[in-house]
Amino acid sequence: MAKDGVKIATIGGGSSYTPELMEGFIKRYDELPIKEIWLVDIEEGREKMEIVGAMAQRMWDATPYDVRVHLTLDRKEALKDADFVTTQFRVGLLNARIKDERIPLSYGIMGQETNGPGGIFKALRTIPVILDIVEDMKELCPNAWLINFTNPSGMVTEAVMKYGHWDKVIGLCNVPIGAMMKEPETIDKTLDELIYKFAGLNHFHWHRVWDNEGNEVTKGLIEAMYDPKKDSGIPANIFDMPFMKEQLLEMNMIPCGYHRYYYRQEEMLNHMLEEYASEEGVRAQQVKATEAALFELYKDPNLNYKPEELAKRGGAHYSDAACDTIASIYANKNAHIVVTTRNNGAIPDLPEDVAVEVSSFIGATGAKPIAFGKLPTAERGWLQIMKAMEQVTEEAAVTGDYAKLLTAFYLNPQIPSGATAKRVMDELLVAHEKYLPQFAEDIARLKAEGVTIKDDVARELYEKGL
Amino acid sequence: MAKDGVKIATIGGGSSYTPELMEGFIKRYDELPIKEIWLVDIEEGREKMEIVGAMAQRMWDATPYDVRVHLTLDRKEALKDADFVTTQFRVGLLNARIKDERIPLSYGIMGQETNGPGGIFKALRTIPVILDIVEDMKELCPNAWLINFTNPSGMVTEAVMKYGHWDKVIGLCNVPIGAMMKEPETIDKTLDELIYKFAGLNHFHWHRVWDNEGNEVTKGLIEAMYDPKKDSGIPANIFDMPFMKEQLLEMNMIPCGYHRYYYRQEEMLNHMLEEYASEEGVRAQQVKATEAALFELYKDPNLNYKPEELAKRGGAHYSDAACDTIASIYANKNAHIVVTTRNNGAIPDLPEDVAVEVSSFIGATGAKPIAFGKLPTAERGWLQIMKAMEQVTEEAAVTGDYAKLLTAFYLNPQIPSGATAKRVMDELLVAHEKYLPQFAEDIARLKAEGVTIKDDVARELYEKGL
Amino acid sequence: MAKDGVKIATIGGGSSYTPELMEGFIKRYDELPIKEIWLVDIEEGREKMEIVGAMAQRMWDATPYDVRVHLTLDRKEALKDADFVTTQFRVGLLNARIKDERIPLSYGIMGQETNGPGGIFKALRTIPVILDIVEDMKELCPNAWLINFTNPSGMVTEAVMKYGHWDKVIGLCNVPIGAMMKEPETIDKTLDELIYKFAGLNHFHWHRVWDNEGNEVTKGLIEAMYDPKKDSGIPANIFDMPFMKEQLLEMNMIPCGYHRYYYRQEEMLNHMLEEYASEEGVRAQQVKATEAALFELYKDPNLNYKPEELAKRGGAHYSDAACDTIASIYANKNAHIVVTTRNNGAIPDLPEDVAVEVSSFIGATGAKPIAFGKLPTAERGWLQIMKAMEQVTEEAAVTGDYAKLLTAFYLNPQIPSGATAKRVMDELLVAHEKYLPQFAEDIARLKAEGVTIKDDVARELYEKGL
Amino acid sequence: MAKDGVKIATIGGGSSYTPELMEGFIKRYDELPIKEIWLVDIEEGREKMEIVGAMAQRMWDATPYDVRVHLTLDRKEALKDADFVTTQFRVGLLNARIKDERIPLSYGIMGQETNGPGGIFKALRTIPVILDIVEDMKELCPNAWLINFTNPSGMVTEAVMKYGHWDKVIGLCNVPIGAMMKEPETIDKTLDELIYKFAGLNHFHWHRVWDNEGNEVTKGLIEAMYDPKKDSGIPANIFDMPFMKEQLLEMNMIPCGYHRYYYRQEEMLNHMLEEYASEEGVRAQQVKATEAALFELYKDPNLNYKPEELAKRGGAHYSDAACDTIASIYANKNAHIVVTTRNNGAIPDLPEDVAVEVSSFIGATGAKPIAFGKLPTAERGWLQIMKAMEQVTEEAAVTGDYAKLLTAFYLNPQIPSGATAKRVMDELLVAHEKYLPQFAEDIARLKAEGVTIKDDVARELYEKGL
Repeated sequence: MAKDGVKIATIGGGSSYTPELMEGFIKRYDELPIKEIWLVDIEEGREKMEIVGAMAQRMWDATPYDVRVHLTLDRKEALKDADFVTTQFRVGLLNARIKDERIPLSYGIMGQETNGPGGIFKALRTIPVILDIVEDMKELCPNAWLINFTNPSGMVTEAVMKYGHWDKVIGLCNVPIGAMMKEPETIDKTLDELIYKFAGLNHFHWHRVWDNEGNEVTKGLIEAMYDPKKDSGIPANIFDMPFMKEQLLEMNMIPCGYHRYYYRQEEMLNHMLEEYASEEGVRAQQVKATEAALFELYKDPNLNYKPEELAKRGGAHYSDAACDTIASIYANKNAHIVVTTRNNGAIPDLPEDVAVEVSSFIGATGAKPIAFGKLPTAERGWLQIMKAMEQVTEEAAVTGDYAKLLTAFYLNPQIPSGATAKRVMDELLVAHEKYLPQFAEDIARLKAEGVTIKDDVARELYEKGL
Repeated sequence: MAKDGVKIATIGGGSSYTPELMEGFIKRYDELPIKEIWLVDIEEGREKMEIVGAMAQRMWDATPYDVRVHLTLDRKEALKDADFVTTQFRVGLLNARIKDERIPLSYGIMGQETNGPGGIFKALRTIPVILDIVEDMKELCPNAWLINFTNPSGMVTEAVMKYGHWDKVIGLCNVPIGAMMKEPETIDKTLDELIYKFAGLNHFHWHRVWDNEGNEVTKGLIEAMYDPKKDSGIPANIFDMPFMKEQLLEMNMIPCGYHRYYYRQEEMLNHMLEEYASEEGVRAQQVKATEAALFELYKDPNLNYKPEELAKRGGAHYSDAACDTIASIYANKNAHIVVTTRNNGAIPDLPEDVAVEVSSFIGATGAKPIAFGKLPTAERGWLQIMKAMEQVTEEAAVTGDYAKLLTAFYLNPQIPSGATAKRVMDELLVAHEKYLPQFAEDIARLKAEGVTIKDDVARELYEKGL
Repeated sequence: MAKDGVKIATIGGGSSYTPELMEGFIKRYDELPIKEIWLVDIEEGREKMEIVGAMAQRMWDATPYDVRVHLTLDRKEALKDADFVTTQFRVGLLNARIKDERIPLSYGIMGQETNGPGGIFKALRTIPVILDIVEDMKELCPNAWLINFTNPSGMVTEAVMKYGHWDKVIGLCNVPIGAMMKEPETIDKTLDELIYKFAGLNHFHWHRVWDNEGNEVTKGLIEAMYDPKKDSGIPANIFDMPFMKEQLLEMNMIPCGYHRYYYRQEEMLNHMLEEYASEEGVRAQQVKATEAALFELYKDPNLNYKPEELAKRGGAHYSDAACDTIASIYANKNAHIVVTTRNNGAIPDLPEDVAVEVSSFIGATGAKPIAFGKLPTAERGWLQIMKAMEQVTEEAAVTGDYAKLLTAFYLNPQIPSGATAKRVMDELLVAHEKYLPQFAEDIARLKAEGVTIKDDVARELYEKGL
Repeated sequence: MAKDGVKIATIGGGSSYTPELMEGFIKRYDELPIKEIWLVDIEEGREKMEIVGAMAQRMWDATPYDVRVHLTLDRKEALKDADFVTTQFRVGLLNARIKDERIPLSYGIMGQETNGPGGIFKALRTIPVILDIVEDMKELCPNAWLINFTNPSGMVTEAVMKYGHWDKVIGLCNVPIGAMMKEPETIDKTLDELIYKFAGLNHFHWHRVWDNEGNEVTKGLIEAMYDPKKDSGIPANIFDMPFMKEQLLEMNMIPCGYHRYYYRQEEMLNHMLEEYASEEGVRAQQVKATEAALFELYKDPNLNYKPEELAKRGGAHYSDAACDTIASIYANKNAHIVVTTRNNGAIPDLPEDVAVEVSSFIGATGAKPIAFGKLPTAERGWLQIMKAMEQVTEEAAVTGDYAKLLTAFYLNPQIPSGATAKRVMDELLVAHEKYLPQFAEDIARLKAEGVTIKDDVARELYEKGL
């Protein structure tokens, strides 16, 4: 670790989240003395990076700290001797996510962008890129930690370990911290009065909670979820459809927000179809509008703090998770953070060498996952099929094997198998042609077979080469 | 084992399958010298038992063997000193199956009677009864083998082992033998020229095949499945919707017919909805009509052989599986039969102490399961969620716990979770009130809350007390 | 947890360690506001308890804290409403340990008192007593934590969980803390500059170490072990025979001091045989002499602090481990402490539900074990046989089954199987007759068969009823 | 498989076992129509091969079958298009075994040649050679089955699978068949009236037995072992020291003969030390004398059948195991044979991908291992440490890593760890210098350090370059 100050490289530096990240670093400067931050992006993201980069520099200039924000399109320059590499890039930008969501919905199937069909395609686009980054890191910053925020965070992080053979990686997500920020007040507690234990996969974890006398309060928190006056911290990007209370009490665990897509599949699909049919469009389109507005704000040469509007974006607390993790590694703090890391037995229901998202103590050696023990039978089953789906998706991403992709699709509990699902998959392949070179041959075949994109918005983006 | 001839007790003796079973015993008399067969049924089944029992006796009378078929409503009398107890009973008769299938379909959800919603309810009705039978066996025939044909055969057999603490049990199904009877000719082979290895769960298994020089022929069999001139042995009760060929080649295993409900979920549901909307009605209604016709035939005092029409019933080869198993135990033959038995490690992806359906060699100690090794990733995931679903269903059957039942329902990959699924479950509980004493309290609550049965046919059966 | 101050009950309160424990509590009074301490012992220990109890009170009286040390022979009185119960009793006192060590050595077999033959017999004597204590706790202090120091700490703690069905238990040992206290200086570091990860069983664990930049320093620590000028923290009660350096470098882990009995079996046995033949006698006899001297010191009405001489006793840092654990639970501190707790997957090479000794973070819910991951092949093998030996020993302790005991004996890697080992076992059974009621029948048989105790010292103790 | 007759290649064709193998093939000619047998040996074995090869041809000539026995020193010629390759070679001949046994005994440590120190060194010498053979097979007979008799059969077979990546391998041993041949009569049964289930590792397995009505008779067989008038089939090469009866009844399994080295370690060591001190010398020396006599017999141009004297050699039934296996593969017979094969879950206490020795049904796809289920706790522990020892030994054999070898040595339950064991290991390395090129560097170091061979017989062999 550089003793004269830490170098951070942020891949996807043009993200609208960058100000959140800056705020996080500024708050923690005392324990994490950053010297330079390198934002990297690709040509298509240059404009956004310049806007957000200027704003990032303004944020630092408003502090007593002498930190320089560098902007570059040259990833290697940014990676050189970095101490921490954070990844928040989005291959194909939000336009790709619009396709991920709209194409399935155009056939009445969920387009959910993290673990659903959209998430599978995001993994296909992202994994080859992150493996390239890892190759660069081996050469340019072999001691750096890779802190991955890029979704699907679980699959991307697992691919880094398994196919990139890079162990110094931690996957992050704002969902656990979001729950921990909101839940305590629903039972009139503060976070430091409670003990949380999380276990599962990214966007597919559960938690149990105890008070600081060791008494379990999970049941009380579940009860509070059904009190209309209280807010249990569901991310802004998930429709707030209550879980079946009996089910939660039976499992005696609190699922994450994304479990709605599995435990209330019917209602979540209906909600997404409503959005699809609406003027504002699907979540990706809403986010695109929010982002455009955010970038307008960021252009203001007087704005030197994170604007309130960013919270709506859905990624609140991302920077807390990320900056806490980085600071905790740097200062060997052993903070309790929920991260994606190597299982090592923490969840005995899964193989020892896969990635899991679990309560961990974070220090200079990375994550020390807490051994959670076996899950209840039903959640064990859910977890095991999801992990299998993740693994097959990663294999498909790495090999470009069409049949493996179909296998992952049918395995996904959000997707009813059959001809329609296959059609959705085929359209998604065509629509993402530009970002899926590993599937080039099959995409050519599909196009020759006449596969076109039914959804107007997605088709238009595709035809524009976006 | 009685040395002066074997005593068989058949619970659910009034079943239309009984002649098939008799035929099987007659064919194997030389290796399985039966002395007496006791058919047992309940009062509601008395008439059918008398018809089929008379016919069974005629079948034996047409042979050189002196075997007496006894009919009784007193289970204990039948069990006393039995060597083998076979179970083929159906709690609530076919009317219950009609409800199992129609109520879900009335809400657009599959009613599939073995592993789907119908199967869950069949387990709820059946498990308490089989556990009672086991208690009787402990007292009356503690050395007997229990040969279970009653569906859902996997869950029922597992419950016997786990909750009944009875190890001398084997679960049977005609699906594997059906495949083995039909597939070989599709590649111009006979069964004795091929080596089969099956692994999975009841109605949820896969197999690989080799020729007798040790070369794998699975791929050739898959190819042949797509040859329209060939018949791969799908049971008559499953709609013949082809699997995606890529998927099968990728997994390099042949799924069972019931996998259609998981791998072609969309098309199978559509087909069931068409039947639901048709004059003949759902599968259960068709079977009921077939059965009525069968019993008319059975009444013919000159009929002393299994009529052709029985094959249409969907249970072809059941007797082959059952009689082969019994004969193989009796004569310690080590025949290769695919049965449900204790895992013991045969499928390392599942706990050691659960029930699995695998290739086994059957002899005097019961089943010796062949260690199959790990499944491919995707099938591992499918298998694990199905086993979890089975286990939670069994717990619900034993405890009468409403939340566990809801958990099983949502876990079932055939059921999209949400309010509709819950409604279906609630209607099924009410509809089967008579056979679900363990859920009496919740059923009363549901009725008080005004839950009624939407489907006309099912409601009418319920109202008639059927 | 009592809000008006903590109540501690210490079973085996007459132990010479009690002043060490008092010192630990006094140092941590700010975070662990103790109100009352109850020392309990049996009639045979009354005198020692009175001496050490008076001294304990003097130690508190020399502080500004108002803490009352109660002495009682009535365990129930002590347990009533206790917050923490600590166990440091020794069934049969040091005389039993003398027999444990001398009888095997009289036949040339190690008498090692924790995991060897002596340890097996200590488990047989202790487990029934601790299970009785647990029964009392269920009634009198159902929310208390049981902090077990009694050896063999791993087996005793596992028995509490498995046979006592008591989850709020933590097993402690001073070996890990001893290593952590001494090792850092051997590489010119302090403990807070290093990160330790321990995994294994009680007196059978290994550790790896990193610096606070995340670089592994295990190799450096191994090298330092062979520097004659340095002290790596081997407990005073273990003869300092160096490990084979190649072996340690190959495993890249640091074994615990007790591994000498497995990795240098020959030399350790020879050393013990030398002691056996010497004037001072075996370790137990040396300790007995030390203890007698300690109690003489404790009688001094002016002594109100822990005397230096206690360190020689071999249990240095016991109080640090114990008091840190208690304070960390009480104040929910998440301190890193190496404890015996439920595996939960932390060591995937062992079943999930056994007890292991691993690096844990200790808070209000007890131990959160860190998932260590799989061990190297050789250590996995060692660990698995030791865990099997522990489990069979516990079964023997609970059932009084002679054949199980023989099985445990032969399984123990310190014991060469055969007639001599069996003879040793038989003499130990007879010698401990008074404390092994569960083996009464077999002991009577052995005596009838003429089994007598060959070792003079042990026989004399036995004959005196000690 | 060649349709015009089977080609067998036998590596180590000069072995004294060859006539036994011929007899086995002759007996099974009807089901295994052999056309040609190729005996291969190295220059040092040429003379023995010529003697035994001529005799083998005479044996065939005395039958009606036209089978040609070819002799060659060119392994590639023999392997070309072979259907079955059998391996019965001994690197370093019996002289190496003499060193394996005498050097440890010269220091009072067991020299046991299969799983003890001798076995470890035999693995070190053999594994590189068998891996070479596998490389040749990949080129010359890629469809052949490798039937390995070479000891340590478990380690050698595992190395073929794991390091040679060759799946068509089966490891054989005559111990299970020996037990099955002798035991039944001890309870007045014949083998075909009993059902055997074996599980464990080579020379480290247990079995349970049932009669053909499914009743367990293990206990009866154990009782019969203590009847002096009965013979339970211990191989001639193992000293007949009875197991502790209590121990066997407790485990309710019958150990194999080699378990004496673990369960009666003291007595077996004493017996070996007696032999070591005797005129005839250790077992290897006795075998060498027997072999010399056998070869004298074999030279007789009139001898055309297997002489009685061969049985004394200790390998009775080897040919039954081997020829049954080959015939069962060739004719897809599904015979029950106990073989070393891939675990696949058959013993859930061990990893799925290791080699185990278990009851299997043998057919055209090789071994179908029967899932045995978990072992009793104690045997689980024994098994796990032995498997770890095997794995570390194989790693040492492949890498030539001195520290790994030391680790395997200390892990071996027959070897008391410490300086003496290390000295034994060092002398064995030097003594086998010629056959351990992978350890050349360390051997040179040891010699430079002055390590010489204490045992006169072994030293003399070494000095003669034998």
